[in-house]
Amino acid sequence: KSSPKRIGAQDSYQNEEEEKEKEIDWLRSLEEVEDILSYKFNNKNLLKKAFIHPSYHFHDETKESYERLEYVGDSVLNLVISKETFLLYPDSSPGVLTRLRAANVDNEKLARVAVKYELYRYLRHKAPDMGDQIQAFSKDILNYPIHSNGLIETPKFLADIIESIIGAVFIDSNYSLDIVWKVFKKLLEPIIGPKTLRIHPMTELYELCQKNKMSINFVDGSTCEKYRTYNVVLKNNTVIGTSTCASRKEIVKNRAAKAALDHLKATLPSTELH
Amino acid sequence: KSSPKRIGAQDSYQNEEEEKEKEIDWLRSLEEVEDILSYKFNNKNLLKKAFIHPSYHFHDETKESYERLEYVGDSVLNLVISKETFLLYPDSSPGVLTRLRAANVDNEKLARVAVKYELYRYLRHKAPDMGDQIQAFSKDILNYPIHSNGLIETPKFLADIIESIIGAVFIDSNYSLDIVWKVFKKLLEPIIGPKTLRIHPMTELYELCQKNKMSINFVDGSTCEKYRTYNVVLKNNTVIGTSTCASRKEIVKNRAAKAALDHLKATLPSTELH
Repeated sequence: KSSPKRIGAQDSYQNEEEEKEKEIDWLRSLEEVEDILSYKFNNKNLLKKAFIHPSYHFHDETKESYERLEYVGDSVLNLVISKETFLLYPDSSPGVLTRLRAANVDNEKLARVAVKYELYRYLRHKAPDMGDQIQAFSKDILNYPIHSNGLIETPKFLADIIESIIGAVFIDSNYSLDIVWKVFKKLLEPIIGPKTLRIHPMTELYELCQKNKMSINFVDGSTCEKYRTYNVVLKNNTVIGTSTCASRKEIVKNRAAKAALDHLKATLPSTELH
Repeated sequence: KSSPKRIGAQDSYQNEEEEKEKEIDWLRSLEEVEDILSYKFNNKNLLKKAFIHPSYHFHDETKESYERLEYVGDSVLNLVISKETFLLYPDSSPGVLTRLRAANVDNEKLARVAVKYELYRYLRHKAPDMGDQIQAFSKDILNYPIHSNGLIETPKFLADIIESIIGAVFIDSNYSLDIVWKVFKKLLEPIIGPKTLRIHPMTELYELCQKNKMSINFVDGSTCEKYRTYNVVLKNNTVIGTSTCASRKEIVKNRAAKAALDHLKATLPSTELH
């Protein structure tokens, strides 16, 4: 019989072997990412790093996650979208351009890309609830083909992946904006333009109320711990919109605003709507 | 004697002549900008546009100001600073990098550049109080050699000029990040790094109070219309910091926070400070 010590050593050896195999599988799977991007990395370490979630090396601060690449990718994405919108829409005002940029780089827009191309499949992480979050988000976006404008909860890590891959390609291509745009233009489709740009429900509601001299308040009407409720209330205490869901405050408020808008659009005379 | 109509025509002719001369003077002066930048524009229209404040064509919406260039320049600056900080500080965490980027692209930082190189001198505008604003800002920054961290009022147009010139150089150089960085690295000196990065007084105050289990409130104590007053008040109603000045709410609050910090640092035992 072998001593306990030997069993322990063997276990650890087996674990190491398993880890190595996992690593090899992962590296092989990353070639699929290169296929999705139609881009071959010169430095595969950049590609690897782009898919390491902070939870993966949670207990080892010396090992890096995708966060520094995400930092760079965020700025790269901002610039390529600024440049494209500037060139594509020579007659758009700076205000419209700013809204176009915001809509094309926001977390929901990017998370949709991660879901569409299933890029989350290549992520190394130790976060237990990612699967549920991806499922919920994938279901939620079915109701909004292009963008929900703040009505659904977006798991941040899904957007982070896209920014980290953009950062990785930017650095790997020797800082080429042209290559970044060539790689990501297709993935980011449909790019939101002046015609597909939608006004945020909160902005639209306040504008409509101002036009009709109505004063509104958002009142927290939550009755249990699990769900949050917000009501949109007129000065005379009439509730014109409400939402109850298990989301962040901001999302619930936006949904209540959307409900109030739908109500006003159905009840106000059409002359008062625009 | 000439008829009134003729006098009018002559006046208008003289005005036109004057305008032409002014335009020629302005174009000549823009060559000084090229000297300051050590960059010759291929397309002088970009250089011109970079120095047209929105107020200049206020009554003619068809004529463009620098705002679209500013939109692009903002993103360009963000990226060149992201790239530099990423490369210069390989061991900095994403959190520190984000603070470094914010400090190097913020309005105060950019307005300082506009003042240092007197770039406002080339701006065409019809805003009556720009001179006063420049003078006040130029005086205020003397108290803070590198950055005030939110304690002084920054005229936005001074920062806008820098972003619009960056946008103009980026487009004129056929979208070259290298050329933008070569041109602006010197102008943006001193670039704020981890060693010169200062914590915001509001953040520092809240951290210090949390450490010492003190709960604070910012109370509006304004007594006249011209000046705003904010007091930092403990739960037992003791005022530990105050500021009164004719600035925006945010600035007055930041200054009150700074006053409270100075007070706590002078009165708390040194063991409670870090």
